[in-house]
Amino acid sequence: MIIGKVVGSVVSTRKCDNLVGNKFMIVEPIPSLRVDNRIVAIDKIGAGIGEYVLVAQGSAARVGCDMEKAPVDAAIVGIIDEGQNLE
Amino acid sequence: MIIGKVVGSVVSTRKCDNLVGNKFMIVEPIPSLRVDNRIVAIDKIGAGIGEYVLVAQGSAARVGCDMEKAPVDAAIVGIIDEGQNLE
Amino acid sequence: MIIGKVVGSVVSTRKCDNLVGNKFMIVEPIPSLRVDNRIVAIDKIGAGIGEYVLVAQGSAARVGCDMEKAPVDAAIVGIIDEGQNLE
Amino acid sequence: MIIGKVVGSVVSTRKCDNLVGNKFMIVEPIPSLRVDNRIVAIDKIGAGIGEYVLVAQGSAARVGCDMEKAPVDAAIVGIIDEGQNLE
Amino acid sequence: MIIGKVVGSVVSTRKCDNLVGNKFMIVEPIPSLRVDNRIVAIDKIGAGIGEYVLVAQGSAARVGCDMEKAPVDAAIVGIIDEGQNLE
Repeated sequence: MIIGKVVGSVVSTRKCDNLVGNKFMIVEPIPSLRVDNRIVAIDKIGAGIGEYVLVAQGSAARVGCDMEKAPVDAAIVGIIDEGQNLE
Repeated sequence: MIIGKVVGSVVSTRKCDNLVGNKFMIVEPIPSLRVDNRIVAIDKIGAGIGEYVLVAQGSAARVGCDMEKAPVDAAIVGIIDEGQNLE
Repeated sequence: MIIGKVVGSVVSTRKCDNLVGNKFMIVEPIPSLRVDNRIVAIDKIGAGIGEYVLVAQGSAARVGCDMEKAPVDAAIVGIIDEGQNLE
Repeated sequence: MIIGKVVGSVVSTRKCDNLVGNKFMIVEPIPSLRVDNRIVAIDKIGAGIGEYVLVAQGSAARVGCDMEKAPVDAAIVGIIDEGQNLE
Repeated sequence: MIIGKVVGSVVSTRKCDNLVGNKFMIVEPIPSLRVDNRIVAIDKIGAGIGEYVLVAQGSAARVGCDMEKAPVDAAIVGIIDEGQNLE
């Protein structure tokens, strides 16, 4: 998993049927933890903009979030508790 | 998932049987979202050149798009609504 | 697999149900073995801060650690014996 | 998928039983499409040196090419038709 | 797959039960083939230090090597025959 910060969201009206009802959050990995750039992750936890989150990637995002048949490769699976020194 | 822009397509006449009937779009990830270079993604949504799309990678592209047995590792799974500030 | 060093841990109270009860360790890959930055890995072995560990990534972390249905993409699967020259 | 050019092949006499009978082609991703370096891909289509090919990576190479039980993570799944401007 | 050179091995006494009995080889991808750094791969073929090997990554390493339930994401699946010009 990587740790990132929720920096925004995107809207997609025309999309795969099995993506309907999901929120698409733009997540920016924390530089000191991962140098990749932003990714889009499904949010099943209810993360808010500015929160630090745990993001699972690959098949873990589908299988581990009860979305076995959805075309999802990244999911917010936890919100990091406040007050921790991550950056 | 990553966000990209459809910049073209490729034609492949000699290909795996279970790829027949698919369109191969060349997708350029948006620099501010991902620094990787272009990839080729199956298009099940009907994206046009110049549109911004949501691309799922890895097994999500097969399993999530009802193409379980096709050699596909990237799929356009949504078209980003117009008017959003992505770049 | 890659080899990393356990450098800390994170706490996530609001998280997916099937992540409950797991420890989240921050692992820093050894520079001479992998240039990626830190990742967060589930720890099933009981690694301590400062120990060198073997980290499996991708579906191996779920399927190989009896966590088939958890959204986990990295797991500490072994602790490197002391006295080996890794860096 | 990525687009690459077949630049050679390798021979491996001592190998996993379920790799027997396969050809191992060295594929160089086209710089303008992907900056990674060369990879080795199974060839089920009959690509020749110098041809431009479509390469699927990850589990797609196994599952999508009827090689479910083979240790294969990259496969040539299509040959790009001649006359297209790829580089 | 990628091509690498076996440069060493690591010992891990405390490890997942389903890793018991495996050898952990440190493999250095050949620079001209892949710029990533060293990885650790299970060796089922009996590769020696200094030999050039074919390494499968991801789920291919588990499923393709009859280790479906082991937390393994890289495996040596072939030894490149001598006398080939790889570097």
